[in-house]
Amino acid sequence: MYKETNKRSIVKGISWRVVATTTTIIIVYVFFGRLDLAIAAGMIETVLKIALYWAHERVWQKLRWGKKKIEPFNLWFTGLPLSGKTTIADKVYEELEKLHIPLERLDSKDIRDVVPDIGFTREDRNRHMKRIGHLIKTLQNNSISTVASFVSPYKESRKAIRQMVQNNVVVYLKADIETCKQRDYKGVYEKALKGELQNFSGINDVYEEPQHAEIVIDTTKTSVAQAVEIIVKHIKKNYVK
Amino acid sequence: MYKETNKRSIVKGISWRVVATTTTIIIVYVFFGRLDLAIAAGMIETVLKIALYWAHERVWQKLRWGKKKIEPFNLWFTGLPLSGKTTIADKVYEELEKLHIPLERLDSKDIRDVVPDIGFTREDRNRHMKRIGHLIKTLQNNSISTVASFVSPYKESRKAIRQMVQNNVVVYLKADIETCKQRDYKGVYEKALKGELQNFSGINDVYEEPQHAEIVIDTTKTSVAQAVEIIVKHIKKNYVK
Repeated sequence: MYKETNKRSIVKGISWRVVATTTTIIIVYVFFGRLDLAIAAGMIETVLKIALYWAHERVWQKLRWGKKKIEPFNLWFTGLPLSGKTTIADKVYEELEKLHIPLERLDSKDIRDVVPDIGFTREDRNRHMKRIGHLIKTLQNNSISTVASFVSPYKESRKAIRQMVQNNVVVYLKADIETCKQRDYKGVYEKALKGELQNFSGINDVYEEPQHAEIVIDTTKTSVAQAVEIIVKHIKKNYVK
Repeated sequence: MYKETNKRSIVKGISWRVVATTTTIIIVYVFFGRLDLAIAAGMIETVLKIALYWAHERVWQKLRWGKKKIEPFNLWFTGLPLSGKTTIADKVYEELEKLHIPLERLDSKDIRDVVPDIGFTREDRNRHMKRIGHLIKTLQNNSISTVASFVSPYKESRKAIRQMVQNNVVVYLKADIETCKQRDYKGVYEKALKGELQNFSGINDVYEEPQHAEIVIDTTKTSVAQAVEIIVKHIKKNYVK
């Protein structure tokens, strides 16, 4: 977040003066036909009004009227491992940043890196989701929107998020398990199939499909660029005016 | 966070015009001695410049120059249960809010209400602290300062917080265990002494005194009002210019 420095108000005053004095000189000249006097009047006006404009800026700086509170939203990407959540969410974040809205990116991996021992059981995951919900809510209290990507395989935890936050937009990235396996550059599906990874959504744990997602994208048929376009369009239409 | 509405720019334009046109009329009158022509020139100026001023505002609205990034801080209250953390932190938060800086209040109890099963063992607490550190860091990325109150009895978790956040100000509220027991309106000390509460800092678990606190307040000798004054003064001096 930014505040206007005093220097900014001064320079803004000077920049306005150039525009305004030129206009005044032209008007006075048209009325009285004396360019010398018009310029002299313009000069005096300049000195006086730079100070007045600065004072006017500082007074308005204190007034809250006409400042509109920004409405935060939460874009929530859910889907099987390797369904494309991080890839698409990263691109969406990049696009939305261009709109100069306060925005934060939350990715499952980053948070699990900070607190490594979260666990993957149903209970652990639900507790984890509640914490993420609290984090998003706290950010929203401060007008910050979020782009969050978490497998979030259980209905109840996605529901908990929805109840905690405002303007929740669930993006379900649909991909059949075979496609995800083919994309398995991390080797996680292989490990899960061998039984080396427990509670792996889609293999040895359930992924409960969302029934109320605002946006559903079939990533086996839709390109990353198309997906990003659909999502950004939805956000622009509903939350960024 | 707020943005300037178009309406605000328009009304600001009109308000400036009243100031500016009056000045122009006076100048032109002094130069040419013709009040009628001076007023006529002022009228034309008014119409032209309201539009110009509005355009000027909208151009500056897009410019980032001269907007200063707000430096966020983290006020971290630590101390035994009932040492006065929540009471003093609440009052400090109220005072700091008057400065119109983006600010968030984080209290142990509120967060434990959201996620009830956090636990109180050394391991649980340290993990909890890391999550709080992540939350504060995320808020700071968005220029939001924090007023946080947590028992935080262990050196290593306070150190973890210090490493994760910027402008960390530890406030150690010193109170001997006897004073805290006398303040025991919640009955928690009694319960802990009976063995009904486990891992209770100061009774059946250690409270490691901070060695590097920026502010140390002896709450047996300092009133709440005095404590608030000391802390707010420190923040104003160092972080709010």
